[in-house]
Amino acid sequence: MAEVKSDIEIARAAKKKPIQEIGAKIGIPPEHLLPYGHDKAKVSAEFIAEARKRPDGKLILVTAINPTPAGEGKTTTTVGLGDGLNRIGKKAIVCIREASLGPCFGMKGGAAGGGYAQVVPMEDINLHFTGDFHAITSAHNLLSALIDNHIYWGNELGIDTRRITWRRVMDMNDRALRQIVTSLGGVANGFPREAGFDITVASEVMAILCLATDLRDLQKRLGDIIIGYRRDKSPVFARDLKADGAMAVLLKDALQPNLVQTLENNPAFVHGGPFANIAHGCNSVMATTTALKLADYVVTEAGFGADLGAEKFFDIKCRKAGLKPAAAVIVATVRALKMNGGVKKEDLGIENVAALEAGCANLGRHIENVKQFGVPAIVAINHFHTDTPAEIEAVKRYVAAQGEEAVVCRHWALGSAGTEELAHKVVELAESRASQFAPLYRDDMPLFEKIDTIVKRIYRGSGAIADKSVRAQLKQWEEQGYGHLPVCMAKTQYSFSTDPNLRGAPVDHAVPVREVRLSAGAGFVVAICGEIMTMPGLPRVPAAQSIFLNEQGYIEGLS
Amino acid sequence: MAEVKSDIEIARAAKKKPIQEIGAKIGIPPEHLLPYGHDKAKVSAEFIAEARKRPDGKLILVTAINPTPAGEGKTTTTVGLGDGLNRIGKKAIVCIREASLGPCFGMKGGAAGGGYAQVVPMEDINLHFTGDFHAITSAHNLLSALIDNHIYWGNELGIDTRRITWRRVMDMNDRALRQIVTSLGGVANGFPREAGFDITVASEVMAILCLATDLRDLQKRLGDIIIGYRRDKSPVFARDLKADGAMAVLLKDALQPNLVQTLENNPAFVHGGPFANIAHGCNSVMATTTALKLADYVVTEAGFGADLGAEKFFDIKCRKAGLKPAAAVIVATVRALKMNGGVKKEDLGIENVAALEAGCANLGRHIENVKQFGVPAIVAINHFHTDTPAEIEAVKRYVAAQGEEAVVCRHWALGSAGTEELAHKVVELAESRASQFAPLYRDDMPLFEKIDTIVKRIYRGSGAIADKSVRAQLKQWEEQGYGHLPVCMAKTQYSFSTDPNLRGAPVDHAVPVREVRLSAGAGFVVAICGEIMTMPGLPRVPAAQSIFLNEQGYIEGLS
Repeated sequence: MAEVKSDIEIARAAKKKPIQEIGAKIGIPPEHLLPYGHDKAKVSAEFIAEARKRPDGKLILVTAINPTPAGEGKTTTTVGLGDGLNRIGKKAIVCIREASLGPCFGMKGGAAGGGYAQVVPMEDINLHFTGDFHAITSAHNLLSALIDNHIYWGNELGIDTRRITWRRVMDMNDRALRQIVTSLGGVANGFPREAGFDITVASEVMAILCLATDLRDLQKRLGDIIIGYRRDKSPVFARDLKADGAMAVLLKDALQPNLVQTLENNPAFVHGGPFANIAHGCNSVMATTTALKLADYVVTEAGFGADLGAEKFFDIKCRKAGLKPAAAVIVATVRALKMNGGVKKEDLGIENVAALEAGCANLGRHIENVKQFGVPAIVAINHFHTDTPAEIEAVKRYVAAQGEEAVVCRHWALGSAGTEELAHKVVELAESRASQFAPLYRDDMPLFEKIDTIVKRIYRGSGAIADKSVRAQLKQWEEQGYGHLPVCMAKTQYSFSTDPNLRGAPVDHAVPVREVRLSAGAGFVVAICGEIMTMPGLPRVPAAQSIFLNEQGYIEGLS
Repeated sequence: MAEVKSDIEIARAAKKKPIQEIGAKIGIPPEHLLPYGHDKAKVSAEFIAEARKRPDGKLILVTAINPTPAGEGKTTTTVGLGDGLNRIGKKAIVCIREASLGPCFGMKGGAAGGGYAQVVPMEDINLHFTGDFHAITSAHNLLSALIDNHIYWGNELGIDTRRITWRRVMDMNDRALRQIVTSLGGVANGFPREAGFDITVASEVMAILCLATDLRDLQKRLGDIIIGYRRDKSPVFARDLKADGAMAVLLKDALQPNLVQTLENNPAFVHGGPFANIAHGCNSVMATTTALKLADYVVTEAGFGADLGAEKFFDIKCRKAGLKPAAAVIVATVRALKMNGGVKKEDLGIENVAALEAGCANLGRHIENVKQFGVPAIVAINHFHTDTPAEIEAVKRYVAAQGEEAVVCRHWALGSAGTEELAHKVVELAESRASQFAPLYRDDMPLFEKIDTIVKRIYRGSGAIADKSVRAQLKQWEEQGYGHLPVCMAKTQYSFSTDPNLRGAPVDHAVPVREVRLSAGAGFVVAICGEIMTMPGLPRVPAAQSIFLNEQGYIEGLS
């Protein structure tokens, strides 16, 4: 049996091409690539503006069933499909999200794919990369500093220090910073108040960067940020603190998409990475819209399962950016479906067609949901070596019964050779022009009704429920002119319901909206259903403890 | 009269060459330059290791009189002299420090020189540059997170939470973070304790990066960091938390020197920027030692006046890195000397030879001090348009009476044409092989005696005074094996004494050592004489308010 190599070993052995060659493949001249090392580059704003005139390629969304501890491989499949499309002669670009530094030192590995479906340089992508997240951290914290500084010097704007909603951020898992008291130590340090840090990916600045269409739009959105309220509850904007200009300056380069390559030397944009719970969880609009001008096919992903990720991709990103996805790939694994059917993690290696068939209900629901948006769907069975022929047949049979098709993919082990069939099917689907994409709800629907619509039509719950105070808050925002915004659902990714243990395809559950938040700069209203963790902690034995430089100076312990 | 252009206008009009061409000038092949855009690059570790065999060029230190609000122009003179040396046919490299993002949005402008003696791209250098400071921030805060995480999971190492000395850092002026209470909010967030943030340049990680000789040395020093103490006062090291490997991984690229260019397309390394008070305030050893292998002349600077900056440059950086400076340039301005002679800032435009002559005592003291280290010195009079011929003559006369020479420099207005004379004189001095450099004190001198020696011989005070507790602490560190370390003085930069208002050349003042700190990773003992501000605040009207992107997408408001 062949030796199984680790992701980092495979990535390190990659024969990378100079990034200028990758750019040339999609028509970006070297002078419009701002290099970061020899294997990463940002695409110039001028080139992007110039390319706007061109026609768009076809946009393919990769989404998934509800995540389980078994793993689904959404990023891996996105990369594998991109390589597969290139293999069958289509010009394809992959668009994925950047990795957060914090989790890298905690529990999970990186976000660059896996096996023979990875983007490289994986170490860089999982560490500082081109500095985008650092720029976001700086811009966010500059605004935070300006707020306390404004109060220190007399608080001319009359900010109510109890009602400051703008926190600070750090790209680190640091639970000690979740809730703090600042400005202690006397007069010179300001007015003590309760405050806290979120992880950088949870910053509204991150969501803004991912939704902005150009620098001007970015600066406008930054100015629109609400940092808190006065005693009379009127909002105070970042613009009132004159913070938007300096924030935009800090984000000038970060706004430009990052070009890297897959292990097969195909182009990939890795840009932006907002939290998939309190934000929309998709890579940047700048990257996706630019890629569409440069390729026949753009393969992108959305965070978590299709109930959260695809819904927000369609209702927030596509709506705002005017994108029209041509097809969607729903990723499932036999193991994850078995978990959805009630199998414990330790028993996943044992064939269990009955449990698998039960778990397929989860997949079926996601297929239905994606089709509700008018987007044709296909299922990718991301193959694992313990899968049995009977199990794979069972999934195919189930999906066929839904009127759709399931294709086995072996990109993890084989790279593009393992996604050739999927690539052909995706092209067929996209070329059929069957997509009739439309968002789920209209802009002019009242905010609570938007939430209720998602609960009923996507989660198949009995409806959204909320306290009077939550409804009153929504009403107030409607009066202030924010009623046209889409809603960004924050809910457990593990279930259609708000109970993470309720797998499969539950119905008729009530979905309680605990809290609502306004991201006026990003342009959505967050509906929080359950607990939201915006600053993770580190585990008992953090991954950081086993990350080091080996004798050759190579990084060990990243994955 | 010619229109006076702002620094940013001059910088923007610069005809920059591709960084590969700048590298070629000093023999760095393109494959050993890791580009960051087209005008910045890091030099590869392999190239640096390879170059170690070569002979060294000559090292020139640029230092200054005690700073005044009138400004001296140390960085500007460093850049001007580098260009001047190149102009007269010497291969010269400038080595300066990176800029901190925080102050950029506060009061001061950038750190890239001024007028026609600048390094470019100045906007990048003053903002994220190549991400070194962000990497330092991440590495520092990873250690902080690991400390609280360790305590959260049971505190196996027995860290006394009252005795944690390792704080957090942010590259921002944010006084609200100076003193905070963390881990509030209940069990899930850990054990509440007092904590705080410093600005990134004040991080021991910054000092370590600037003193490390290679990656292996860097990782060792990171492991040596003392993060706090147990109840029995025994130290807990970063190594005990297994933090050193991951921290080194985060700093891998940051350790490599950054190559940019002057306005005259001459090579400049801009690398590292530790606080000149709680750290040694010099650019990195990696940059300086590498530059020495590639050029005939390396011109570098040290923070603040020669009493602090040059002393630490000689006693810490040169001692640790085995550097032998060939000559020192002491920068003075007529205006600053007049302030040292008692003239108020608003009267600086009026000729006042008497006050100037009185103020020259400050300059004279610095000349004497530099010569104490065995290094020949020359004075550069950084010309300002209000200087009168009589005033310039007075300075020259004064310096000649000390047995040295003063040369007028006009690099701000003229670039290298304004430093030709200085360049010739510097070459003369360096070629004379007159330098007999030796540090002020020996490694084996007891710690308190080292402090006392600096006070008596450099500050010309009556001696260092300290409480019993301070002396006991020093004694304890000597017993623990830290007695061989040099001391890093933290004192006001405005005076030879600890009273910032005592200008000129005071004598017989006592210097109280309020507190001592051990930077075991960086490898020095900090002696704090007076107040130390490790996290600045923003002014009433922060510079951030007037920094923005103009219609053409150019940055306005940076200087």
